Amino acid sequence: MLPGALRVPIVRAPLAGGASTPALTAAVAQAGAFGFVAAGYRTPDALRDDVCATRELTGEPFGVNLFVPGGPAESGAYEPFVATLADEARRHGVALGEPRFEDDAWADKIELLEADPVAVVSFTFGCPSAEIVARLQAAGSAVWVTVTDPDEAEQAAVAGADALVVQGIEAGGHRASFVDADGAGEYGLLALLGVVAQRTPLPLVATGGIATGGAVAAVLCAGAQAAQIGTAFMRCPEAGTAPAHREALATRTPTALTRAFTGRQARGLVNRFLREHSEAAPVAYPHIHHATAPLRAAGRAAGDAEVLNLWAGQTHELARDLPAAELVAALVAEAEERLSAARRSLGAQ
Amino acid sequence: MLPGALRVPIVRAPLAGGASTPALTAAVAQAGAFGFVAAGYRTPDALRDDVCATRELTGEPFGVNLFVPGGPAESGAYEPFVATLADEARRHGVALGEPRFEDDAWADKIELLEADPVAVVSFTFGCPSAEIVARLQAAGSAVWVTVTDPDEAEQAAVAGADALVVQGIEAGGHRASFVDADGAGEYGLLALLGVVAQRTPLPLVATGGIATGGAVAAVLCAGAQAAQIGTAFMRCPEAGTAPAHREALATRTPTALTRAFTGRQARGLVNRFLREHSEAAPVAYPHIHHATAPLRAAGRAAGDAEVLNLWAGQTHELARDLPAAELVAALVAEAEERLSAARRSLGAQ
Repeated sequence: MLPGALRVPIVRAPLAGGASTPALTAAVAQAGAFGFVAAGYRTPDALRDDVCATRELTGEPFGVNLFVPGGPAESGAYEPFVATLADEARRHGVALGEPRFEDDAWADKIELLEADPVAVVSFTFGCPSAEIVARLQAAGSAVWVTVTDPDEAEQAAVAGADALVVQGIEAGGHRASFVDADGAGEYGLLALLGVVAQRTPLPLVATGGIATGGAVAAVLCAGAQAAQIGTAFMRCPEAGTAPAHREALATRTPTALTRAFTGRQARGLVNRFLREHSEAAPVAYPHIHHATAPLRAAGRAAGDAEVLNLWAGQTHELARDLPAAELVAALVAEAEERLSAARRSLGAQ
Repeated sequence: MLPGALRVPIVRAPLAGGASTPALTAAVAQAGAFGFVAAGYRTPDALRDDVCATRELTGEPFGVNLFVPGGPAESGAYEPFVATLADEARRHGVALGEPRFEDDAWADKIELLEADPVAVVSFTFGCPSAEIVARLQAAGSAVWVTVTDPDEAEQAAVAGADALVVQGIEAGGHRASFVDADGAGEYGLLALLGVVAQRTPLPLVATGGIATGGAVAAVLCAGAQAAQIGTAFMRCPEAGTAPAHREALATRTPTALTRAFTGRQARGLVNRFLREHSEAAPVAYPHIHHATAPLRAAGRAAGDAEVLNLWAGQTHELARDLPAAELVAALVAEAEERLSAARRSLGAQ
């Protein structure tokens, strides 16, 4: 399925790590928009179960999002940082996890999706090989690749992607970058849409900080065929968002990029853990993710938001506590209203 | 003048430092859009001359943009960095400038504008006091304050601003932040418009990476009443852009934020000077601006782009070599087309 074929040009972002549920994916699909089952962090069996559970709730198409594996980091790169977390572990009465590399069961998940295809397979953290893209397309799926700069867009086009999910710096959760590096490529969404549209004719899905119908209308004007929305769905009752996280999203707490929780740049609400550990955190994903997992589980169990990875986009304070179908309808109505108002502004000349 | 009253909802950004000319300001005004005379770096006499020259070219309203002065930095904060520039000075056969503080003739320029008002006085690098805002308003000017995060927006509202220029991280040249700090507040334009619109009812002008009619339409949808555009006017024949800078804007060179040229965060094309000196550059504006001025002058004279501050927004590669009036007309036509296309995307449901 291509973004231009959606009945409602809204896509619910994958939201790996707990917020995505079959109920949320299905509710969005039933409302005419499009949703993703998040394969990240799930075993192939759990992914299969999520796909089945979603199919039981809706006959509408949906997608699956996969993490593209990187490579193992040198132990010297992450061991000093993990050592600094010993106090955190004591404070929360847990042992840190083993900082290790694994590929999120990449090959098994590709096989599963090839054998039992969904409408769209999207990718984060990299670009699949042209061979894998072709296998998924042959199975009947469209392949969407998430990009954060124009060079990644060109790579994805060469690999044969059907569409690009264009992620701006505003986005909550992990940056989708092919390589996790500091520096130049930190594009705002609106600028990135303009530059990517000039480099490739592929259809674009815009993502990052979209929480209102005005922003949906904006990205459609800026060249996207659909708006992908994450954080703004996390307060829906169908979402699996942890209660402490749900509450924090409704505040005006600022966000920041950090590697402290997972070893990969991600945007979250500024809390104690982020403040104290971001500066030292290395590029070492998923090693740091595994090391901090018991801390985060303890935080969730205790309702302690100060140790949680409170992923949130820059507009989290605009997220609404509404059932997903109502949210989709509200966003569409607002978008229509904003388009009319914008026409009046221009037409006044 | 309020942004909602513009005949064409496009504002040419101030572009202090050479690109702004009376001819460019007047051409934009004649086309029904709005332009600024840049007071930054100019003496009060030069500012008066620029205002007069602009008035000779157009009877349409225009504005003046002022830099709000900060305070002097400790010499220990910038001397080590200035010492690292000794090789650059030798290489270019110049003496470095004296790293010093001055307030850009703040009080004299306010007096000048009070005595001889223009339609809009806009501010960058801070918020004027409520007393100064009231004086300018009493003289007949509207006061627009540039903001980069929602807290600054609230401060400007309290000071009595008539409108806010909302600057996203995409913008070329200096970040307008009230305080030049690293960290949390690096909002993408689309997200910032959404958050600021929720915090204050003031009319908003969007700026940062706007180079196409699609982006103009986008910010109007996202709640702005006008789009302020800088880099995309810098290739116009009426602009005073240095030839080496003009040429560099047409390339796909990435941009980055740096304090290396002026001691204040600004976005420019990545070149040798930016790569070699950004890491060490301190927060010390305008001290570093004065220290590097002879280097930059030598670079401009020699056409050596590698030592110039090549200010550029993230979409510089979309800037067009067109007369300003033609550019304004093209942006409006594109914006109308994109609004219609966006309506079709939404209406297809």
